[in-house]
Amino acid sequence: MNVFSKKRLLASNDNLALTESLNPGILADRLASLAEIGKTEDGGVTRYVYTEEEADAKKLFRSWMENAGLKVREDAVGNMYGRLEGKEPELPALLTGSHLDTVPNGGAFDGSLGCVSSLMAIEAIIQEHGQLRRSLELVVFADEEGARFGSGLFGSRAAMGEVSKEDLFQLRDENGVTAAEAMKRQGYAPNKLKKCVYPKEEIHAFLELHIEQGKSLEQQQKNIGIVNGIAGPSWLEVIFEGETDHAGNTPMDMRSDAAAGAADLVLSIENIPREISSTAVATVGKLQLFPNGSNVIAGKAEMTVDVRDIDEEVRDNMLIEIKREAERIAEKRGLKTETKIQIKIPPVPVPKWIQQHAQEAAEKLKLSYNYLPSGAGHDAMIAGKYVPSGLIFVPSYQGKSHSPEEFTSLKDCFNGVLALKEIAENIGNDNGQS
Amino acid sequence: MNVFSKKRLLASNDNLALTESLNPGILADRLASLAEIGKTEDGGVTRYVYTEEEADAKKLFRSWMENAGLKVREDAVGNMYGRLEGKEPELPALLTGSHLDTVPNGGAFDGSLGCVSSLMAIEAIIQEHGQLRRSLELVVFADEEGARFGSGLFGSRAAMGEVSKEDLFQLRDENGVTAAEAMKRQGYAPNKLKKCVYPKEEIHAFLELHIEQGKSLEQQQKNIGIVNGIAGPSWLEVIFEGETDHAGNTPMDMRSDAAAGAADLVLSIENIPREISSTAVATVGKLQLFPNGSNVIAGKAEMTVDVRDIDEEVRDNMLIEIKREAERIAEKRGLKTETKIQIKIPPVPVPKWIQQHAQEAAEKLKLSYNYLPSGAGHDAMIAGKYVPSGLIFVPSYQGKSHSPEEFTSLKDCFNGVLALKEIAENIGNDNGQS
Repeated sequence: MNVFSKKRLLASNDNLALTESLNPGILADRLASLAEIGKTEDGGVTRYVYTEEEADAKKLFRSWMENAGLKVREDAVGNMYGRLEGKEPELPALLTGSHLDTVPNGGAFDGSLGCVSSLMAIEAIIQEHGQLRRSLELVVFADEEGARFGSGLFGSRAAMGEVSKEDLFQLRDENGVTAAEAMKRQGYAPNKLKKCVYPKEEIHAFLELHIEQGKSLEQQQKNIGIVNGIAGPSWLEVIFEGETDHAGNTPMDMRSDAAAGAADLVLSIENIPREISSTAVATVGKLQLFPNGSNVIAGKAEMTVDVRDIDEEVRDNMLIEIKREAERIAEKRGLKTETKIQIKIPPVPVPKWIQQHAQEAAEKLKLSYNYLPSGAGHDAMIAGKYVPSGLIFVPSYQGKSHSPEEFTSLKDCFNGVLALKEIAENIGNDNGQS
Repeated sequence: MNVFSKKRLLASNDNLALTESLNPGILADRLASLAEIGKTEDGGVTRYVYTEEEADAKKLFRSWMENAGLKVREDAVGNMYGRLEGKEPELPALLTGSHLDTVPNGGAFDGSLGCVSSLMAIEAIIQEHGQLRRSLELVVFADEEGARFGSGLFGSRAAMGEVSKEDLFQLRDENGVTAAEAMKRQGYAPNKLKKCVYPKEEIHAFLELHIEQGKSLEQQQKNIGIVNGIAGPSWLEVIFEGETDHAGNTPMDMRSDAAAGAADLVLSIENIPREISSTAVATVGKLQLFPNGSNVIAGKAEMTVDVRDIDEEVRDNMLIEIKREAERIAEKRGLKTETKIQIKIPPVPVPKWIQQHAQEAAEKLKLSYNYLPSGAGHDAMIAGKYVPSGLIFVPSYQGKSHSPEEFTSLKDCFNGVLALKEIAENIGNDNGQS
């Protein structure tokens, strides 16, 4: 298994376009230093929220922000902010950042790259301009992954006012420790939850750089992915019921085979998104037959269909079409079917003007780019519900993520920093929304 | 749930063709009496081998055989024989019977009907003829189901010399008791295993009546099923390997989806037997995706394909075709595939001359009949490897079996007894093989 190392990162530094104010060596150093904190035997990283590892990573990151001259503060749930005041501090600020927590045995780039690249972009802006019209604020959101308490995007939700005090006492880790208790142990103040809410009118926009966690950019050989919308996931549970019969004693034309019904639907689901939109996806990754015996015709099949698109109407039409298809298959095969929406999160659009800034930045930097949807949620998905939010992707090696094999070349990381800096500079100096 | 009761059985006695020597009331009594032994809360029957329940059932059955004038003996593993000497006792005997053990919470007909109908056929022959040319021997095979030690067809395999002494010490029940120990506790003699082997030259043929455990006879509205071959099961394990990717971040045309490959094969497998033979069946009842997560494209799918036919060449050609189809699908979809034969039991043919006797019996009795394969194994499958063996089916209500809902109307049971008696009479009086 090819895992992260500083050596591998430095070796991926081919033909790098250096700038006066940005040093790829520092980028590599910082990613490698963070990857040491919570490093696993497999070469991955485990940093759960409200643990010593996460605290150490934040402490290190805080020291970098302070050295850069940012004014650093943490809120009551552990979101960490580093502010560069603007020339016109009364203007709403441009926020940029990501997260430092990880999934168990995760990678060295998911979240970390977004934080480090935001810092380097702001450092370069300070070096080149001192300050911009707008204030720039780096944000490290707490507990994006939800790996400890099973509740992802926690910090950004708290900052946007989506977390209630009850949540803090209901969420428990696998040892039964509540989120509230875990926060207290790390010196945070669950009682001051309300103070975490960032006044939306003080935010002009939020920008996040992230690894793609998919293969599109790699396969299309593009440097930069401009996210045109964040596809809210929806899960449709589909159950087929037939007759449990003996596999040997039931002729082929006397069967009500729930497994065959499920297979029929899996193949239809593969085609439905293609017919509807290039950004739409639908997946059956979870499927269970009953009784699941080698010599028994399945009397029941349960599956979950994951359906996504950046356009809510398109996504919802797919859900309806899949439900209809399940009914058509059940009718044709003499099965019963039931469908049930399990989750249905609205997609979050990325404002055109932010996409336009990203495209102009890529063109100016002579970076190749492509527009693509984000299938996964990110802190930008939460922020994007309340304030204009942009999401920029850099390629993921073989699309691998949430694993020690997660990798992005230093060149690709650095291109991301260059693009983020360019976009932040332009938005930070503009005076309106477009 | 509609379960067995004597009342239900008697109520299913419509327009019954009585004979002088055969009384359907006694048939109902005996089935009901056996169903009381090991009766479960659900209305089913649990009689494991070498338990008090099985011993009680055999004791009752022995008393019926002795009352009929049969000479009864048990062998060292618990196979019980009741013999009616023939006029020419030097001729090889006609054996007929089934088993009295059950699966957990099984039905009142599986095995019991075969034993009771063999007894009633012999009783009627005694009443009408005293004896036949050949000796008739009723056999109650031990442990057909294999429910306790996980080793089915045990008694018939012992009688045919297929069980080794080591088997008796290796087979253990869920409490760790060996088969040898369980046998001893019931007074059997595991050390005398060799004496259980029935000399094949002393057997002219073996006849078994059994419920169909399928829906064919019921749907075709036939009284009698003449089994034309016992389909040996074969299990082919098929594994597809693709790429585990994020369901949201992987466009439809960049996927190597093992679940879709598996679905493709499930649908092909539905069609392959239909194109090959009306007796062929193939089933995917067991399927597992990995990691089996709602938002993860399956990187691996494992399935077992159950493939059967009464013709070994046809069955083996199906296995080859399914393997080829898996390879075609893998190639088309950029997946890897592996296939492995897990079990491959040869089908056992039923000699034409026995089938002919069965057809003549049905025609004489004006019973409707159909030829059909047996998809499930029975003691006749073991005996049939060594001596000419015939298997006669009667309809199963809705094909239900191995459950308290197992049911066959008294009329259908009685038709089976009539047919079995007719066949036994003819074979018992013949002097050759056809």
